[in-house]
Amino acid sequence: MTAAIIVAAGRGERMGANYDKAFLSIGPRPMVAYSMMAFESCADIQQIILVVRRERIDAAKGMAQMFGISKLQQIVAGGAHRQDSVRNGLEVLPPEVQTVSIHDAARPLVTAALISETVRSALKHGSGVAAHRMVDTVKLAEKGTVVSRTVDRAKLWTVQTPQTFSVPLIRQAYARLKETGQQVTDDAAAVELIGEPVRLVEWAPLNLKVTVSEDLTTAALLLRI
Amino acid sequence: MTAAIIVAAGRGERMGANYDKAFLSIGPRPMVAYSMMAFESCADIQQIILVVRRERIDAAKGMAQMFGISKLQQIVAGGAHRQDSVRNGLEVLPPEVQTVSIHDAARPLVTAALISETVRSALKHGSGVAAHRMVDTVKLAEKGTVVSRTVDRAKLWTVQTPQTFSVPLIRQAYARLKETGQQVTDDAAAVELIGEPVRLVEWAPLNLKVTVSEDLTTAALLLRI
Repeated sequence: MTAAIIVAAGRGERMGANYDKAFLSIGPRPMVAYSMMAFESCADIQQIILVVRRERIDAAKGMAQMFGISKLQQIVAGGAHRQDSVRNGLEVLPPEVQTVSIHDAARPLVTAALISETVRSALKHGSGVAAHRMVDTVKLAEKGTVVSRTVDRAKLWTVQTPQTFSVPLIRQAYARLKETGQQVTDDAAAVELIGEPVRLVEWAPLNLKVTVSEDLTTAALLLRI
Repeated sequence: MTAAIIVAAGRGERMGANYDKAFLSIGPRPMVAYSMMAFESCADIQQIILVVRRERIDAAKGMAQMFGISKLQQIVAGGAHRQDSVRNGLEVLPPEVQTVSIHDAARPLVTAALISETVRSALKHGSGVAAHRMVDTVKLAEKGTVVSRTVDRAKLWTVQTPQTFSVPLIRQAYARLKETGQQVTDDAAAVELIGEPVRLVEWAPLNLKVTVSEDLTTAALLLRI
């Protein structure tokens, strides 16, 4: 059985909005609804765990009903950092769940096809992480906006979510994070820290992360609404 | 006086199209027309040099007339690599041009506002390069799609075009490239190689590079056509 953990507990500090980012509107729906609908429509996902700030739990329940998210199993309260929110989601996974797809609600362009590809990779290799080849030239700028040097991008990828893992693997990785107190920017990094291989799943379409307010317009256009 | 060099001589090898990438259609226009129109409408640009494959020069002339590109000064033939095409453009700049904005036609979302910001930076600092903070986590994968490690993205930027420079600076950089035979992935790298500072201009909206065929759809939606 495969579950999704959708993380929607972040505050959009770069958005200029004093509001939970995942609950900002994109067209007629809150941002998080698009991810919920993608996982709802994906045949490889049986359960959804939603992580929101404690104050949002009731609103999230209503939202899930409104958009017919029948796979929603539980809504749990998030923590101070993203990895605390993911941990809270991992803790409530029922024992029959062997694979978990972790996704940020700030990526509303996720599709059922992408979710399935990461699940397939996780079933075969233990992990499947949405990834895009580095297209642009990469610069290191150590002092403000003055370039220090160009970075060789030949073997660089950007990674997004969903990031899907076998449950024992990601639990082991999160247990180690707790012991060491390390901070990570994605779940794959937690797996890397225990020396286990992480497998990338190339996904060519844009899998935008909504970070600045311009991204809301971009996302709306790409969702064709 | 400020000129633009628009580079449209590349073949879209990753597009599956046996065709000059910049001449693929996005809605009702060839891709290169969007960049031409952005530079035409930018008050900080007085002249446009277009670089295409030799076989495309006549078609490009017709295209420029059709879209009313009155600033088009010259169409020159490109070279084997991108930097050869840029060099051919630099060689025909008239002496009154003190600043040049180099742009890839594969980035049809460029706007007059972005062009102006890079020109302003070049007038003040000698260079102005369209740049975006690294939003996604970055992974190094040395063997296929297996992650070697996470790269610290804190001071990493992706850079795009336009990249605008004072003409003596970029000419000096290209002269050195010729001497050393080095290959660069962008014009800023040529300036870095002569030890001169390159200034990034942060641009929040998506400045997509059309690389795979899915990007044509994305670009069409974002151009609202």
